[in-house]
Amino acid sequence: MPKIAEKLVLETRSNVSAPVLVVGSVAFDNIITPVMTGDRILGGAASFASLAASYFTPVRLVGVVGNDFEDAFIERFRNRGIDLEGLQVDESGPTFFWAGKYHENYNNRETLDTQLNVFEHFRPELPESYCRTPYLMLANIGPDLQIHVLDQLQGRCFVVADTMNLWINNKLDELLSLLKRVDCLAINDSEAIMLTGDRNIISAGWKLLELGPRMAIVKKGENGACLFHPDGYFALPAYPVVNLQDPTGAGDAFGGALAGYLAAVDNTDFKSIKQAMVYATAIASLTVEAFSCDRLESAGPALVEERYRELLQITAP
Amino acid sequence: MPKIAEKLVLETRSNVSAPVLVVGSVAFDNIITPVMTGDRILGGAASFASLAASYFTPVRLVGVVGNDFEDAFIERFRNRGIDLEGLQVDESGPTFFWAGKYHENYNNRETLDTQLNVFEHFRPELPESYCRTPYLMLANIGPDLQIHVLDQLQGRCFVVADTMNLWINNKLDELLSLLKRVDCLAINDSEAIMLTGDRNIISAGWKLLELGPRMAIVKKGENGACLFHPDGYFALPAYPVVNLQDPTGAGDAFGGALAGYLAAVDNTDFKSIKQAMVYATAIASLTVEAFSCDRLESAGPALVEERYRELLQITAP
Repeated sequence: MPKIAEKLVLETRSNVSAPVLVVGSVAFDNIITPVMTGDRILGGAASFASLAASYFTPVRLVGVVGNDFEDAFIERFRNRGIDLEGLQVDESGPTFFWAGKYHENYNNRETLDTQLNVFEHFRPELPESYCRTPYLMLANIGPDLQIHVLDQLQGRCFVVADTMNLWINNKLDELLSLLKRVDCLAINDSEAIMLTGDRNIISAGWKLLELGPRMAIVKKGENGACLFHPDGYFALPAYPVVNLQDPTGAGDAFGGALAGYLAAVDNTDFKSIKQAMVYATAIASLTVEAFSCDRLESAGPALVEERYRELLQITAP
Repeated sequence: MPKIAEKLVLETRSNVSAPVLVVGSVAFDNIITPVMTGDRILGGAASFASLAASYFTPVRLVGVVGNDFEDAFIERFRNRGIDLEGLQVDESGPTFFWAGKYHENYNNRETLDTQLNVFEHFRPELPESYCRTPYLMLANIGPDLQIHVLDQLQGRCFVVADTMNLWINNKLDELLSLLKRVDCLAINDSEAIMLTGDRNIISAGWKLLELGPRMAIVKKGENGACLFHPDGYFALPAYPVVNLQDPTGAGDAFGGALAGYLAAVDNTDFKSIKQAMVYATAIASLTVEAFSCDRLESAGPALVEERYRELLQITAP
């Protein structure tokens, strides 16, 4: 049984938080930054997204790990109260592995190694108990697998989705099919440019909506994030991080926190999306202040709430 | 006599706007962008800054033009009510000339030609009537010349200053002397990094204050601007410009609007600086929507006010 992890106290419409389903990769990373090196640390989009979401609402995780994924790592998800019924353990090989290096300004990262391992033949299968989850974070995996998740869902579900350059280049048709079934696309600026062919982030953002999603969020790292929504545009600066350690997973944590907040308040109106972005920015800022998911797990709800309030303050003229 | 140009109606502490002095370059530019080419168009930091400031308060301009600066160009400043007693006309040669090219993504510009002309021996001399101006925008010129301006001022003056990579590389000692006498340094992100040697914009921004200025604003173009102030940090996204035509002068217009607003309300507290940044961002967004100062001049106060209100709206969670 998952533990009950401490959550943020939010003003919600009811007293019941809706659960969120997070689907994506769970991985081991080797990370080299200008300041430190991390070996075989917990990574993967779904790890960051599920841990982030767990600050807001009950989380159900679908992913795959291999025969080298020790209990201590499983325990990290359990400690944040995450439901792991959907986490497949594939004994046939090791966990997905990625090695990357950040250069001096952190603006570019280089992939040094990718070993798909058990992730290569992964198909996200939803346990029966997950099929009616009303909020879904489709973290970055192939769009064909993302579609397979949507096909298993029953009932109303608000779908947040991320993707990456690899799929825009190699599985564009599947990605375009997926986008017609997504409520909120949350991708980074370079992906928005690739997907629309428009170098102006503002016009690119609006063009994303023509591809299907009702709204789109463009993540710009240290330059914040912006929302393109039928009710209007919203721009949010980043939290002023000084102690940058490892940007890996910041965007995934952002997506997870976003979906988690929306599920917690069970509301997806314009105002709620904007509030979710502030919380997601707070969570992302904590994520990058240590390697892996370390600070994301250890920060605690009080610090997340403090950053949220600080963000409101530093963005108010 | 300068004309009386229409200004924004602002809530001020008194009914009298303080004047602002703008010192810097007036130039002819040739600009090549991915969409258009402009030949011998009005440029120079002081042109953009003074025209921007003229939306808020009476402006006094100190600069130099050559024997090729036709009356029609002089008239453009007069039409915005700018006091030109301090604008030197040097008949010994042509006006400062700059040619530049923007590449496809507008992120980098290349200098194709620089002809200093009459600007080479320019010394900014303040007419007697300018010496007690309580607000000063030191647009980008050599720091030795900026110091020469400060040496002529009498009485209290709030000093906003800009600079550029050229002076950081070639006149660092003079620049560091200047900074000890500046209230608000307003420079772009790459200059902040050069000046502090810190690649993190947030810690770089705070380090700027250690060089002398009481506060610093870092301008980040399409990513907005941020303020480092004894009372706190403030981050403001850019206005979502879709119709980008020519980014030249946006930073100068920002600085001029900032100083102009502060002079108009005759207040430099934290709240006023933040408000000034919103107006400056509104003005900068208009500036880049056409070549040269064209849209800056033609926009009119109602459109500036509209953008200001839009900025408040799109940045409020």
